[in-house]
Amino acid sequence: MKRNTLRCIREIKRRKLDSLLISSAANVTYLTGFREAEGYLLVTREGQMVYFTNFLYAKEAQQYPAWKVAVSNNNIFNMVKIYIKKLKLKKVGFEAKLLPFLEYEKIKDSLTPQGVDFIKTIDLIEDLRAVKNRSEISLIKESVKISEQAFEFIREIYDDTMTEKGLSIEIERFLRLKGDNRVAFAPIVAGGKNSALPHYQPAEVRLDKKFFLIDLGSKYCGYCADLTRVFFWGKMPILFRKIYDIVKGASCAAISKVKAGIPAKEVDKAARQFIDKKGYGRYFGHGLGHGIGLSVHERPYLTPRNEDVLGEGMVLTIEPAIYIYNKFGIRIEDMVLVKQGKAEVLSGHANW
Amino acid sequence: MKRNTLRCIREIKRRKLDSLLISSAANVTYLTGFREAEGYLLVTREGQMVYFTNFLYAKEAQQYPAWKVAVSNNNIFNMVKIYIKKLKLKKVGFEAKLLPFLEYEKIKDSLTPQGVDFIKTIDLIEDLRAVKNRSEISLIKESVKISEQAFEFIREIYDDTMTEKGLSIEIERFLRLKGDNRVAFAPIVAGGKNSALPHYQPAEVRLDKKFFLIDLGSKYCGYCADLTRVFFWGKMPILFRKIYDIVKGASCAAISKVKAGIPAKEVDKAARQFIDKKGYGRYFGHGLGHGIGLSVHERPYLTPRNEDVLGEGMVLTIEPAIYIYNKFGIRIEDMVLVKQGKAEVLSGHANW
Repeated sequence: MKRNTLRCIREIKRRKLDSLLISSAANVTYLTGFREAEGYLLVTREGQMVYFTNFLYAKEAQQYPAWKVAVSNNNIFNMVKIYIKKLKLKKVGFEAKLLPFLEYEKIKDSLTPQGVDFIKTIDLIEDLRAVKNRSEISLIKESVKISEQAFEFIREIYDDTMTEKGLSIEIERFLRLKGDNRVAFAPIVAGGKNSALPHYQPAEVRLDKKFFLIDLGSKYCGYCADLTRVFFWGKMPILFRKIYDIVKGASCAAISKVKAGIPAKEVDKAARQFIDKKGYGRYFGHGLGHGIGLSVHERPYLTPRNEDVLGEGMVLTIEPAIYIYNKFGIRIEDMVLVKQGKAEVLSGHANW
Repeated sequence: MKRNTLRCIREIKRRKLDSLLISSAANVTYLTGFREAEGYLLVTREGQMVYFTNFLYAKEAQQYPAWKVAVSNNNIFNMVKIYIKKLKLKKVGFEAKLLPFLEYEKIKDSLTPQGVDFIKTIDLIEDLRAVKNRSEISLIKESVKISEQAFEFIREIYDDTMTEKGLSIEIERFLRLKGDNRVAFAPIVAGGKNSALPHYQPAEVRLDKKFFLIDLGSKYCGYCADLTRVFFWGKMPILFRKIYDIVKGASCAAISKVKAGIPAKEVDKAARQFIDKKGYGRYFGHGLGHGIGLSVHERPYLTPRNEDVLGEGMVLTIEPAIYIYNKFGIRIEDMVLVKQGKAEVLSGHANW
């Protein structure tokens, strides 16, 4: 059995459950390596695994040896009920952050007459996923490398007749050729004042201002990268330079704070205070960063009110920003690993 | 106010609610045209609209004039509660198929002390979306056109040194250059026996068998296409030809059955019986098709047990298939519009 499955079973026991019904595809991948399907995985404290899926994914699921596959096209929850009875389970956990209400209700209603408790769990596997093992770290490093190569690629191909959308298409093609067939998220290409919109969607707008912000991330063997750089051709206006240096300073302040045992919000605070003191606090309206792995955004979250604590082996983004609406936005996003009590910067922080 | 919003309000009233809290991004787009953000939209029976989102999307949301934007980075549900109180709402519907259990619980727990009922709704807006208006139909037609051009493009660029993944990357690039920045779904490119896996993911496998299946779909102004073709170079083996003709026959049988007022499952049955009679029933394990619009898969569903009834203005995929595991699979997927009592085939059914 895979080590991650063993960790999950330990957690199931610790929470006094006898099983967990997993609806998150990323969690299924984490436990088994099986990717990209729609289905539910039941894991028991005895280590049995049953994967419930439909005809579309049945053959692929059956190739995976560690579980039993139960196929239903009509009523998958009835099948879940049958297995729960067969395995004599009485305390079945579910993933409350993901399971839609209607599915919750259907499963609960079918289990209650059998005397089975259907019990809310929060982040049971997500807690485990926050800490990466050696093999995960090496996959993440490879993903970071591909994403950094994409920035080089952008420097090579950019010309000012390109549109945001056109460039984003070439970036995604590059990331997919080098990495997984899927990217971590749709690349953001925001020219000129569009860079002041944090989650801007690239449009048919020419990149003729010679300034743009790029936020991109590949996947490699399922593991995500997430990096942001701003590009500027020509002489940098004074305000731009000033803001850039503040954001850069905030990034350094935060990274120097990263350490196992530190509350995530302390790291957020280091960057936020830095920006605040320079008078731009209200232009930095989002969290400083987030954990990253099989999902782009995962535990821990580096925000002012989050209660996560950093631990050895966590991988984080550090992405302070200042957005001046209708003018420009600067965000610098790097990825760091918590290692031997401090931050190992995985991306080429400021090497450009 | 947009016509779709009026239809939604009529439905809110009919269901004896005073408002609906919408969590589906596609439903928000349907009512307002606003796209691609994360947030919740509250629509009241009086026509007030409040959009709850966070800093990341705030500026874009505020550019949209028809609603009030409420921004919160910490506790969006507290903000929802405040507005529900302010607007004196007592019967707030929610989308039970989409809202995760934990969010349901948080909102419900905050509303109960205020004496507000938080009421499950199923497919309130999805029911409306099933029937397309003239402008939606013309956008879908454009999306179909782009997707069909992609098949021509494949014929032009294919050579047998390409991999499934490589070809899928070029297809997606093509679809995005011609259509929206996002595709309807990741193109399936399945060479040789991989075509027998209905939701196969393209891999680093050379397309040297001179046979492959492609399932692709662009988006155009938010509207999806979804088409499947099989490609064959050289002399077609007898079994392949035979299976192809059966699938094609099933498609024709189904399309000739499409009519306003007919239960969707009758159309499914027409194709299924055709394939059954030829002795391949057990190789066609999924539904015949589905509605398509702002989502790739939406109401109505053409499956053996679905209770949807076809109506004028619905747009459907018709995708019979036969999968012979470890050999090959044939799926032919077209799109049809229910118009003047019969099917108008939107895609070039068999014109290749």
